Amino acid sequence: MDVAFTLYPGMTALDLVGPYEALANQPEVTAHFVAASPDPVRCDAGLVVTPTTTFDEMTAADVIVVPGGSGWVGALDDGAVAAWLRRVHPAATWTTSVCTGALLLARAGILDGRPATTHWAVHEELASLGVEVRADRVVVDGPVITAAGVSAGIDMALTLVGLIWGDERAEFTQLVLEYDPRPPYRAGSPETAPAEVVARARAVLGER
Amino acid sequence: MDVAFTLYPGMTALDLVGPYEALANQPEVTAHFVAASPDPVRCDAGLVVTPTTTFDEMTAADVIVVPGGSGWVGALDDGAVAAWLRRVHPAATWTTSVCTGALLLARAGILDGRPATTHWAVHEELASLGVEVRADRVVVDGPVITAAGVSAGIDMALTLVGLIWGDERAEFTQLVLEYDPRPPYRAGSPETAPAEVVARARAVLGER
Repeated sequence: MDVAFTLYPGMTALDLVGPYEALANQPEVTAHFVAASPDPVRCDAGLVVTPTTTFDEMTAADVIVVPGGSGWVGALDDGAVAAWLRRVHPAATWTTSVCTGALLLARAGILDGRPATTHWAVHEELASLGVEVRADRVVVDGPVITAAGVSAGIDMALTLVGLIWGDERAEFTQLVLEYDPRPPYRAGSPETAPAEVVARARAVLGER
Repeated sequence: MDVAFTLYPGMTALDLVGPYEALANQPEVTAHFVAASPDPVRCDAGLVVTPTTTFDEMTAADVIVVPGGSGWVGALDDGAVAAWLRRVHPAATWTTSVCTGALLLARAGILDGRPATTHWAVHEELASLGVEVRADRVVVDGPVITAAGVSAGIDMALTLVGLIWGDERAEFTQLVLEYDPRPPYRAGSPETAPAEVVARARAVLGER
């Protein structure tokens, strides 16, 4: 099973690595890290990762993972990720996004007529692309799965592991990752975070 | 504030990237990715990341993050990570580990006389190094913070952000990462996972 992890400058590393950790360890999986060129890719907080293949070379994948990141606007404008998604999505079994990766799926036409989720701060941007936005952690719609912001990729990938290999495999994966989250604060969503924290986050994220 | 993220072959990417995502985005932070050599480092499930500096060059850091991974035994035997930790830990403000990274801290003598946590599957190995092992998600003891397995690095780093910059900064960080976890299964710890899943995970992890 070929799993393609999409890379582009300014992506958020955790959007990639959450799903990668749940999927790339499965014995059936060959992980591919796909970018516009073979050059190392800089994530939005400085981590540099190395592609294993390019959009030109990777003409098919069973599973596609598209991370979001501060660089999503640049990736939309650049168009290379969306162009590649248009080519590989039709034959893929699962096409998935994390965070603002949903906007790249939308640009590729993959979310036309589908419900989807994304980072809470860009619900309006995704809706403006004609998508039926849901404020859910993970949205499964046919062969397309979208996740909310950044850390939601872990929940999305465990959901996908269960869909592909069954519940027991997903439970095994969750246990190995010791995914028994205990957030030290109650601030993970705009509904639970203090109002002044939400306002500041909206302001900062809007500036990016 | 210099934050050193320790890299070694066979590390688990999520152990690194969870804390990185919470820490490297703070405006005061300069993130350093430190390895034995400048060569790219392959994580245990295939992702390749690029160091920005080496153990020889990085002689001081305010915060140190040591990930775990399947390669922890090799890293213990190799000794380079522990030797570097012995040099930089005394002057660091915070020294932290995720998952089996605690075994590298122990080997460096940093956990002598301290309580600590690690991945549930290696509690005995950590105890055999003379450490008082606690089955907690995050253990803060003076300037040393240890986290349980893999995904616990996110909880650890949010705790650390709160300790360094205060609760509101940590809440802001949690909200930006949309860390509002909704695990699709109840299998994140040996206490909650089905017994047969725990048995299989113990067998598989023991083989590594």
